[in-house]
Amino acid sequence: MFKQNEQQAEGFQVSLQEALDNLKYNADGLVPAIAQQHDSGEVLMMAWMNRQAIEETLRTGRVCYYSRSRKTLWRKGESSSQVQQLKELRFDCDADTVLVSVDQTGPACHTGRRDCFYWKADADSVTIDKTPIIDPKELYDKT
Amino acid sequence: MFKQNEQQAEGFQVSLQEALDNLKYNADGLVPAIAQQHDSGEVLMMAWMNRQAIEETLRTGRVCYYSRSRKTLWRKGESSSQVQQLKELRFDCDADTVLVSVDQTGPACHTGRRDCFYWKADADSVTIDKTPIIDPKELYDKT
Repeated sequence: MFKQNEQQAEGFQVSLQEALDNLKYNADGLVPAIAQQHDSGEVLMMAWMNRQAIEETLRTGRVCYYSRSRKTLWRKGESSSQVQQLKELRFDCDADTVLVSVDQTGPACHTGRRDCFYWKADADSVTIDKTPIIDPKELYDKT
Repeated sequence: MFKQNEQQAEGFQVSLQEALDNLKYNADGLVPAIAQQHDSGEVLMMAWMNRQAIEETLRTGRVCYYSRSRKTLWRKGESSSQVQQLKELRFDCDADTVLVSVDQTGPACHTGRRDCFYWKADADSVTIDKTPIIDPKELYDKT
């Protein structure tokens, strides 16, 4: 469906159900999902979604991923309170990647950093170049 | 290595080789790589890299992916001339995703669109909302 219609003009439309039927999920039923802060353009994180997570995200306006470690839906912020409000959800030409434009409350990263991409590589080394904006203990130790 | 050092301060450094030894490649030896235009912040595409592609990208300053369909290194632009010059390469907290900041010549997408995320979803439908900036025939029919 995506491939056959890739040369259609702007405004060409299919139903959400048809699109979801035709996404290229991996063997685990997942597609990678990139989260980008809607106003600054920062790439915050990459996680995974299954069909149900995509449907819930579009229905509720709050970003829901699928946690591969916990094998369950993961409503971003459910334990950390650092939620992602959905601004826009897109699929790519190959129908195997989701891009969500979001409004991220606080840090997206479990380390307390604003985003997860804090290891910067050069020809010889890899260096941490971002500092947590919140102590991660404050994110998860709520008892 | 990445996990153990996630609370290190800015400036903490490891060798590139140690970092590459500790990336979480999937069963095919690949990690997803997100390409972002360095100045506008546009997310252009997502593709895959193996260790060799990451090393080549850092060494040459020109972005190299691994093509899952062709099962070979893919120097972006080798057939379309739409190259990506590397500005910055980063790894995420989980060591399973690469983010490359690039300077993309022309369209990143094989359809001739600037980026690959031209299918926009809402609660009921999915709509094409971007137009090619170059006729894709001009990208590949060079004979």
